[in-house]
Amino acid sequence: MDTRRWTLAQRPTGEPTVDDFAIEETSLESPATGEVLVQTRWVSVDPYMRDRMAPGESYAEAWEVGDAIPAGGVGEVVDSAHDGWERGDLVVGQLAWAEHVLTSGDHLQPVDPEVAPPPAYLGVLGLTGRTAYFGMLEVADPKPGDTVVVSGAAGGVGSVAGQLAGLAGGRVVGIAGSEEKTTALTETFGFDAAIDYRSDDVRAALGEVCPDGVDVYFDNVGGPITDAVFDHLADDARIAVCGQIALYNATSTPEGPRKLWQLIASTARAEGFLVGEFRDRYPEANHRLAKWVQSGQLETRRTEIEGFDAIPEAFAGLFEGVNLGKLVVALDDAPGTA
Amino acid sequence: MDTRRWTLAQRPTGEPTVDDFAIEETSLESPATGEVLVQTRWVSVDPYMRDRMAPGESYAEAWEVGDAIPAGGVGEVVDSAHDGWERGDLVVGQLAWAEHVLTSGDHLQPVDPEVAPPPAYLGVLGLTGRTAYFGMLEVADPKPGDTVVVSGAAGGVGSVAGQLAGLAGGRVVGIAGSEEKTTALTETFGFDAAIDYRSDDVRAALGEVCPDGVDVYFDNVGGPITDAVFDHLADDARIAVCGQIALYNATSTPEGPRKLWQLIASTARAEGFLVGEFRDRYPEANHRLAKWVQSGQLETRRTEIEGFDAIPEAFAGLFEGVNLGKLVVALDDAPGTA
Repeated sequence: MDTRRWTLAQRPTGEPTVDDFAIEETSLESPATGEVLVQTRWVSVDPYMRDRMAPGESYAEAWEVGDAIPAGGVGEVVDSAHDGWERGDLVVGQLAWAEHVLTSGDHLQPVDPEVAPPPAYLGVLGLTGRTAYFGMLEVADPKPGDTVVVSGAAGGVGSVAGQLAGLAGGRVVGIAGSEEKTTALTETFGFDAAIDYRSDDVRAALGEVCPDGVDVYFDNVGGPITDAVFDHLADDARIAVCGQIALYNATSTPEGPRKLWQLIASTARAEGFLVGEFRDRYPEANHRLAKWVQSGQLETRRTEIEGFDAIPEAFAGLFEGVNLGKLVVALDDAPGTA
Repeated sequence: MDTRRWTLAQRPTGEPTVDDFAIEETSLESPATGEVLVQTRWVSVDPYMRDRMAPGESYAEAWEVGDAIPAGGVGEVVDSAHDGWERGDLVVGQLAWAEHVLTSGDHLQPVDPEVAPPPAYLGVLGLTGRTAYFGMLEVADPKPGDTVVVSGAAGGVGSVAGQLAGLAGGRVVGIAGSEEKTTALTETFGFDAAIDYRSDDVRAALGEVCPDGVDVYFDNVGGPITDAVFDHLADDARIAVCGQIALYNATSTPEGPRKLWQLIASTARAEGFLVGEFRDRYPEANHRLAKWVQSGQLETRRTEIEGFDAIPEAFAGLFEGVNLGKLVVALDDAPGTA
């Protein structure tokens, strides 16, 4: 069948723009044994993708110019040559910025609309949620009473990470970039306090809301916000380094205050992690996250942008902070949007 | 009795100089119950002291201008009103940059010249050795076959830390600042390789001697040397942050390349520590370090500078790297130096 997909037209320089991507018309065969043909309903745009678009190897291989863009997606099986799936099944897995994807059925997972709206399987019930789960509960490991600060708190990972810290008994402070977001942090996502880095002096505000210092810092952003948090570390602080979105578009090596001395003075630990380290434990995370969603303890609020054509614009918008909660793109004929 | 001690004359600005210190003549009473009068034989000069001389609280309270300078020391009991000590005993503990010290006998430890030369109780068998012990074996925890890099490797802590990594089965690479030092690292201290940061391109040299990356980094120095090591971190690297001597004399906030991204890409952990965290386990460390010294597995080589008057100059010399191994000052009438 004929379909369309987005490819990498050129490597972005600085902030990604829509010109860095191109639509390719392509034709897919019928599924071979073990394969399924999936019609994409929602696709994910994530900050980590920016790194894959850069030249040279980072923690994973760089994508090549001309390649289709792999991405998490929720879709509907339209043709199957795999025992486990039949036409009409809703599935989640590694798909692509594409209207249809032909893929092995082995790595897809079922989507249960009774548990949560299907696109939540790209957010709180997807890689985003698992990133927050392992980063917060394993790497940072807040204890009851700990003061927990989350940067990028209104984003997909941050909004879940903060909620999980609250479930663990922490007092949770989120840092985000608009009044709409800080209001959502305390009113929708149940954070105890929120700081607006665009209007507040973050360093001073942290002094006020964290008078005993920061026991746990879950860092999605890096840069000056992280510098401010480092000035407030409590003794034996733990820092889970999840992302550094403030740096991803840098065109030269970003510089800032040297921080290792603060790790000594606070006998603190900073640990970088990738969710893939915890692959063996995804079923555990999926199970627990779904329970919390069903019990209403985890909020699934997210931002949806509509249309296949809008995918690159949505991706670029991540770096401007357009989203509240996980950002997903609903394809044109996704159920409920057509 | 009349004696002399060094006091802090003014807070150093940038590199410490002898003018930052002054000799004070003072008179000591006879020991009250529980006290001993100790004649200092060797005193310690340590990089951490620079931090105590700066204004404002860091991880410990700042010293005040006019105060005597507390320091580890080895001395001889000349008068005792404490059950545990009698005249002639050799002791080690917190003394001062002073010819004589009146102090509680409770916190002193015996020095056994059969185990090691007495000033080694300020080095490999003292706080220096324990810092290396807990930092390397607990915080960094190298496994057999790990590539272990130590900066400030020819100094008091570094030379012990590297040897301990070798005892743990690591392949040990030291970074130091002269040919004399790099030769000593491989020939005296048993390191597997050494890099001279004054003559070598550290980043390139690390690439050559650590082709599979750096599994463990024991950081005494910070600054550009540490930047170079971060560019070679292996997956799951562990960084024990012990000191940042390159930064201690900075007069403004030191800046450098932001490193948290590298912690993510290598899923690495950086942990600052202070030896005092492990106070409860000092007896264990003392016991094991003494065993290794007696068996010849730990080298006690150190640098001695002579004379009470030379103490501040010796301290300033730490920041120029004058020492090979632990730097101690032998007071004028210390045994064997008179």
